[in-house]
Amino acid sequence: MLGMEAAAPKLTREELVERLAAEFPEAAHAVGDFTIEQGWFGGCRVRRRFSHGSLRPGGTVSGPIMMALADFTLYVAVLSAIGWAPLAVTTNLTINFLKKPEPRDLVAEARLLKLGKRLAVGEVGIRSDGQDDLVAHVTSTYAIPEVSR
Amino acid sequence: MLGMEAAAPKLTREELVERLAAEFPEAAHAVGDFTIEQGWFGGCRVRRRFSHGSLRPGGTVSGPIMMALADFTLYVAVLSAIGWAPLAVTTNLTINFLKKPEPRDLVAEARLLKLGKRLAVGEVGIRSDGQDDLVAHVTSTYAIPEVSR
Amino acid sequence: MLGMEAAAPKLTREELVERLAAEFPEAAHAVGDFTIEQGWFGGCRVRRRFSHGSLRPGGTVSGPIMMALADFTLYVAVLSAIGWAPLAVTTNLTINFLKKPEPRDLVAEARLLKLGKRLAVGEVGIRSDGQDDLVAHVTSTYAIPEVSR
Amino acid sequence: MLGMEAAAPKLTREELVERLAAEFPEAAHAVGDFTIEQGWFGGCRVRRRFSHGSLRPGGTVSGPIMMALADFTLYVAVLSAIGWAPLAVTTNLTINFLKKPEPRDLVAEARLLKLGKRLAVGEVGIRSDGQDDLVAHVTSTYAIPEVSR
Repeated sequence: MLGMEAAAPKLTREELVERLAAEFPEAAHAVGDFTIEQGWFGGCRVRRRFSHGSLRPGGTVSGPIMMALADFTLYVAVLSAIGWAPLAVTTNLTINFLKKPEPRDLVAEARLLKLGKRLAVGEVGIRSDGQDDLVAHVTSTYAIPEVSR
Repeated sequence: MLGMEAAAPKLTREELVERLAAEFPEAAHAVGDFTIEQGWFGGCRVRRRFSHGSLRPGGTVSGPIMMALADFTLYVAVLSAIGWAPLAVTTNLTINFLKKPEPRDLVAEARLLKLGKRLAVGEVGIRSDGQDDLVAHVTSTYAIPEVSR
Repeated sequence: MLGMEAAAPKLTREELVERLAAEFPEAAHAVGDFTIEQGWFGGCRVRRRFSHGSLRPGGTVSGPIMMALADFTLYVAVLSAIGWAPLAVTTNLTINFLKKPEPRDLVAEARLLKLGKRLAVGEVGIRSDGQDDLVAHVTSTYAIPEVSR
Repeated sequence: MLGMEAAAPKLTREELVERLAAEFPEAAHAVGDFTIEQGWFGGCRVRRRFSHGSLRPGGTVSGPIMMALADFTLYVAVLSAIGWAPLAVTTNLTINFLKKPEPRDLVAEARLLKLGKRLAVGEVGIRSDGQDDLVAHVTSTYAIPEVSR
């Protein structure tokens, strides 16, 4: 969305990390490999550390890992635009797998395409660290809870 | 697809379990909670044991868990129709989250909508164990490797 | 959704046809080929008359025709469940093209997978008249306007 | 895809217009409002002239018009990368409707996210003429026929 990159996020990276850790303790294991590298209003970049446990036959990172990464990255992008709203929920998600990722870190970057009162829609591009081509592309919608508006 | 339920799968449930365990040892942890309950030609039913680590704020099972479950279930449905082809890969997946799942087992049921030479398309319905309403609905496409044809 | 077929629709087929014609006069040309054959609470069946103008190279019905048919069919299914709400709008739609349709009528059948206060989600199956296999499968979400609630 | 904008398309705009008109005479009416404004390797921009017949209640352009526009625009982008292949077919398409379009021309821009031997995946952004915000965003996959490879 035009000009959004210039605006300050509603939550800093540090605030997000702290709140997510406090409210999602049980999920900490699952998202432990996800690092929020940068956040801005309506967008962010998240790194997923490579680990051998995520390999599929053929030596590529599994699809569910990429889906979880995209979902988390867009969740952070939504929070960066509306502030802390842990009950925001994904209503749908479409992922296209474009290329086999190499056995290295994944870097996901999300941006909102729409920020409405009830729905936020965004896209996420996932790349193998240091490469230009996308390994996966995601579009997804979040329902924004009334309480957070 | 009409009449597919009546046909025998290309791989029995036991063959599938054995081969998946042998070829995906690193993934065993991730899919350890998934149990193939029943398989037929072009479809199957998979149970995902409830565990507290998969909870999101609000006490529901996380979206990525459901995406991983749907992806795995459709993978098994594809293998049941084309035989062992570990390099079959998801090309895209669309999930609609319909209802907050309760903190209990999830049961996913997949069926192929199309079985072509190069692409297989299927849908997966996910329910909380013992309930009728869907908690999530998935459509997804698998690319079938040439070697398996 | 379980048991929905048994319930009466909020609008009869005749009421729907009349209201759509009155409020969408400019669209009448576009949807003129669509006939609502049957409606029930949360679902309906719509026929699209074959016409030669919709052919693509290779003699099949064009994709956009099928997308328009699916969108209209689900719209009718939503209205059958919430009553007249012309401002209900599609928020997203995913279509999988499964098989080349033959040069004959298309029959689309929609059913709601979820009927919430703010969102309705449904699926649509499209077949060539008289055949069992799906030529296309659609899932789509409608936003329900506040005024209609 | 990196650097694709710099490469020459496999078919010029003029060649595309001529071939489409010759091979799709029956479809000429349907796509008559679509003008290919610019093409490059793996991408293009298409304008859809406003006409009152495409209005929905509320005065906005109908969803099916946008789906048809996106499908056509990506088709042209695929042809610009692989050359003339009229039997390339859409295998799936996901559209997110982001904002009500105003009653004016729509401008769609497509770019390929992946160009494989068997599948091409692309995204399309649709805007009201002269505006920055997207009114719709589409991702879609085309199957590339063997004969064209």
